[in-house]
Order: sequence, then structure tokens, then C-alpha cells
Amino acid sequence: MTHAPASFTPEPGGSVAVFLEPSADGLAARLADPRQPAVLVTDQGLTRGDGVFETMTAIAGPSGHRIRKEDSHLERLASSAASLDLPVPDAESWRQAAAAGLEAYAAGTPGTDAVVKLVATRGPEGVPGGGHYVSGTADTGSDGELTDVTAGTKPDAPALSGTYWVLVSAVSPGLAAARERGLSVLLLDRGFDSSVSERAPWLLMGAKTLSYAVNMAAMRFAAAQGADDVIFVSSDGKVLEGPTSTVLLARRVPTADGADTVELVTPLRSSGILPGTSQGTIFAAAQEAGWDLGYGPLEPSDLLDADGVWLVSSVRGVAPVTSLDGVTLDVDRELTDRLATFLDADRSPGRHGPLH
Amino acid sequence: MTHAPASFTPEPGGSVAVFLEPSADGLAARLADPRQPAVLVTDQGLTRGDGVFETMTAIAGPSGHRIRKEDSHLERLASSAASLDLPVPDAESWRQAAAAGLEAYAAGTPGTDAVVKLVATRGPEGVPGGGHYVSGTADTGSDGELTDVTAGTKPDAPALSGTYWVLVSAVSPGLAAARERGLSVLLLDRGFDSSVSERAPWLLMGAKTLSYAVNMAAMRFAAAQGADDVIFVSSDGKVLEGPTSTVLLARRVPTADGADTVELVTPLRSSGILPGTSQGTIFAAAQEAGWDLGYGPLEPSDLLDADGVWLVSSVRGVAPVTSLDGVTLDVDRELTDRLATFLDADRSPGRHGPLH
Repeated sequence: MTHAPASFTPEPGGSVAVFLEPSADGLAARLADPRQPAVLVTDQGLTRGDGVFETMTAIAGPSGHRIRKEDSHLERLASSAASLDLPVPDAESWRQAAAAGLEAYAAGTPGTDAVVKLVATRGPEGVPGGGHYVSGTADTGSDGELTDVTAGTKPDAPALSGTYWVLVSAVSPGLAAARERGLSVLLLDRGFDSSVSERAPWLLMGAKTLSYAVNMAAMRFAAAQGADDVIFVSSDGKVLEGPTSTVLLARRVPTADGADTVELVTPLRSSGILPGTSQGTIFAAAQEAGWDLGYGPLEPSDLLDADGVWLVSSVRGVAPVTSLDGVTLDVDRELTDRLATFLDADRSPGRHGPLH
Repeated sequence: MTHAPASFTPEPGGSVAVFLEPSADGLAARLADPRQPAVLVTDQGLTRGDGVFETMTAIAGPSGHRIRKEDSHLERLASSAASLDLPVPDAESWRQAAAAGLEAYAAGTPGTDAVVKLVATRGPEGVPGGGHYVSGTADTGSDGELTDVTAGTKPDAPALSGTYWVLVSAVSPGLAAARERGLSVLLLDRGFDSSVSERAPWLLMGAKTLSYAVNMAAMRFAAAQGADDVIFVSSDGKVLEGPTSTVLLARRVPTADGADTVELVTPLRSSGILPGTSQGTIFAAAQEAGWDLGYGPLEPSDLLDADGVWLVSSVRGVAPVTSLDGVTLDVDRELTDRLATFLDADRSPGRHGPLH
């Protein structure tokens, strides 16, 4: 990807957008003020929620920002895009765009953590490859040869006809307080049974798409009941995930020598949930620490009986659940701190990561 | 709403955007070239699929365009927005914006039908009322009085802090051919059981939201199998709807006097489907014509046994289903023509309409 000069410096606290756009030699990064309109009303990300995204945290340090779990996020973005048959830039292009955005952000707001969002949409309707992209990179023509369904590209390199950008912005000030205070959570029916993702790939259960209207409606429903967040449950009674987070629970297990060990459990991935990048990182560190790891299936009673329940996500981090449908849950401060330390350590998730 | 001068005339065949924007006395319509970027990357319509839409057909006539079923579409838009707790402009503002867009469109492309799309999003994140709109128009403060959760508005008039536009564009040339040829259709599992919409309003089953990634994925899945379209089936085996259409079936019923009467049936609305504006209009005219009307529940075998099955939608119109999962269906040309005539007549849907 071509490096573009830092053509935009935001005011203190201001956000930076970096667009990945076609250029003579592939893709170029263009810095821009996100307060300026940038997207067409015909973009299918907007008209159909047809796209994917990732939200990452960048930690400020003496030699610039370090993006937490960047590899895991980029792997999951690629996996989500594959579910949607959506051509997206390669990981290195995203990495460079994020770095350019963070550099410009730091010029306006030095030395503070930031949120880095990556978005890819199918692009405007009616553009070659945009509205007509059918099944991956290529289609078999009547003569039996591979013919590309997008215009002007090799069969093995689908046209990047979508809209792609990185947005670097300030961390919302309320998140640390919410994390500290803990979350009152409602259990809400997600409508699907826990085996649907295996039989119906068109439901995109494991993809992080832009179609989040239901997730947002569930959060509004919870807020209207005075709750902070939601844990979705399948129609067959299995614990799934939060609208923007992964569920973890821990059990302290007494050992023969009188000490405790900890069992850390997350819902079964095949039940149709997003693979959590924070969960993967925490699990990798927990395993190194000698904890036992478990993968559901979990039911609401498992949450009530646990020694701790958390919603984990990249930006809010590790937030303890303090009540579930109005029932107070035990909060284990020591375990919360250890999970947060595991996340901060940002170890490679290995086989506990989003794609393994 | 303030009338704005027609500040933009498209080239022949070109589209027109009309933005509804805050002004001193409410809302103003601003005409614009939709090939220019108009939406922020932080718009929640884009980042969360958090918004609603309608797509209407405008028929060209000697005294300008007539929008088919405009009342039904505006009612459904309001109903969808209510499901999402989304403040939207009133019907009259939409009507005026659509009329202004059609006038400009006709200046570029006289005398041809057009597609009129209405879109409302929750607007940019972080704007007062934008990202913080919780539960309708007002919230009860600790003193028991109504306090508005949006900034600077009366409790009974939620701030129009979203992004609102009308897009007028040409009718896609392939639609008439698809209608004429008929559709090969796949049945695909929608994952939900048919009672979910009643127990889980946060799933937004009856709302036409911008979160259409699953609908688009289902269409791509069908295309990859060589099919033209999809009929979704609930996890308990009930016929639901197409990703962008309503299902109708007809049975010819012999009468005592040796003639036929027709029974026209559509799936049960409470099974979690969108109320079809075309279905409502067709049903109203069919009732006047003395047909019997039925509302499911329907199962796939009912489709196989029918004398005709159609997918109806505002832009493509009445399209016969010629095969279902590879099984050829009877196509009744006479019934297809009558249904198309019913739709063209554009009678008030009355109690068969989207909200009755």
C-alpha cells in the first residue's frame, strides 16, 4: 500500500479517518477529517448493513501506540468478510492505515489511548463488483474456464470495489466507570436455537457484520428496564453472548492441597456466537497460569451458580456482571483483576484465538 | 417543511438525492447529487445498520409522477421507526421531499417511472439524541416529571437528530424480464420459530431496518446455487417471506355453478414477517373482486400444492415462482395478470394494509 503524507491533523481529542482507496499500484491510504461527509447514500454498508467491522484499543506508550490483539482482530475481519463473500484489503494494508491514523491522532492528542475501528462495506450499488458480487472471487463460465464476476481483475484477486476505512477516536470517558461499577444485565431471547449456525450459513452467525440493529434494540430494551447490558440466550436455553461482548464465567475449585484452582468457561462457539478476541487472549494467559478452561454449553443457572461472571470486549475490557435479571451475583474482585491482567498481557491467543 | 429550490438537475437517467435537514422552522429539503459523499463514517445507519427504509415505485403520467401505495409505505416507515425508538420526520415532510426529488428527476429524465427510496438513520454517534436515544420520546426523571432524553426539544417532539433522505433513481432494466421469466426459488431456514416476534420485540421482526446483511447473504447463497430468489421458512417449518418480498399463493376453488372462485393466501403476519404493502393493496382489490382471502399459517407443501405462487414487492411487482427447490410449479398466467392489475389499481389497502 502507498503511504500518504499525514494530510490531516485533528484538534486535541479529535478523530481521524483513514480511507483505503484504489491507486495505480493497489491501495493508498488517505487521511481525512471524519466530520466531513465521506460515504455515498448508495453505499451498501448504509442501505443494507452489508459490511463488516472490528473495534480495537490502541495503548499509548513512549514509542507510540500499540494496538491490542491486532492480529486476532485482523484474522476475525478476514473471517467475517469471507462469510459475506466480501473482498477486503489484506492485513498489511489495514495495519498501515491504522498506524497512519494513530500517528495523526497522536499529533492532535499526544500520549492517550485510542479506539481504532476498521470498517469494510460492499461499496456503492451499481458499481462493477459492488452490487453484483455473487460467490467469492470467481464464477465458472459456460466454457468451463474461470471468469471473474468483478470487472478488470484477476480471478485470484477480487476487485476491491467496497468502501474501506479506519477511524481513530478517543476512548469514551464513561467506560472505565462502567467497568469499575459492574453491570446489571438482562437475559434476552436471541430467537435462534443453538444449532442454527451449523445448518444455515446465510444467517452469518459468526460474522461481525454492520447489521447490528437487533443488538442495539436489545441494548435499548435493557436500558428502558434500568439495566446496563444484555446476555442473549438461545431459544433452547443456552447462554450465547452480549450484543457487543463475550460472556466468561469462573468457578473456584478446591484442590487436594487445600488451595484453589480456577475454571474459566465461555459459551460453546458452535452455538452461533462471535469468536471473542478478548476471550481468546484471556484464555491463552489463563492456561499459562494453570487455570482450567472450558467451553460451554452453558445455561443461565450456570451463571447464577458461578463465582464470577464477566462481559469482555476490546474497548470496555473486563466488566463484572453484578446482577442478572435482578438477582445479585457474587463479584470476585481478585478474579476480575487477574482477568484484566491477562487481557493487558496481550499474549498471542494461539488455539484459543478467534479462528482456532 | 420548507420548500427548497430545485438546486440540482441530474443528467438523463441520473439519480437525485433529497436530504431532510433541520432548519429554523423545522425541516428543509435540500436537493443534491447522490454521486457526492453525503454521510459521515460515524453515522449509526452505517456503523450499526441502525435505521429504517422504504422503497416505492413512482409511475410517470401526463401530470407528473404518482407514487404507488405512498400512504402504506409512509405508515410502515413510521411503524418500523417506532419499533426502533427512532425519531423520524412526519409523513408530509417525506411526501414533499419525494415530490421535490421526482420533479428534479423528471427534469433530467422526462416521462419514465422511477424508484423512490426513503431512508432514516439514527445519525452520527456522539450527537445529542443520536447515540443516546433510549426509549421513545421521553424518560421519567427522578422528580417524576417527563424529561427529554434528546437535547433542546419538547417531550412530545423528539429531536430529529438522525439522517434522513429520499433517493429517486431509474428502475433497474432487468426487473421486467425477471418478472416475465418467473423465479426459481430456494427455501432457506430463517432460524427463528414462528412465535418469536411476539415474545421478543427487540428482534425487530416486523420492522424494515437497514440491517439486511442476512437477507443479502441468503440471496447470494441462492445465486450460487443457480436460483433467482429465496423464501424463508421458520425453524418450525412455516413459510415466512422473501428477503425483499412477500409470498402469495392462490388456489382455484370450484363452485357449485361450475365456475371457479379464487382463494388468495399470504403467510400469517404474526409469524414475524414484514407487512407487505403490495400484498395489502392486492388483497384489497381481490376482495372487491369477490376472491376469498386467507392468512396462513402456510407450510412448504402448501406452496407445492397451490395453483400459483408469487413473490410480490413494490419495485419488481408480481413475479411468479416457477420452481421451488428444483421442483417445477404451475404458473397461471391469467392469475398473474389479475394480481398485477390489482397492484396497479393501487386501491387503499384498508384493513388489509400494512398496519391493519
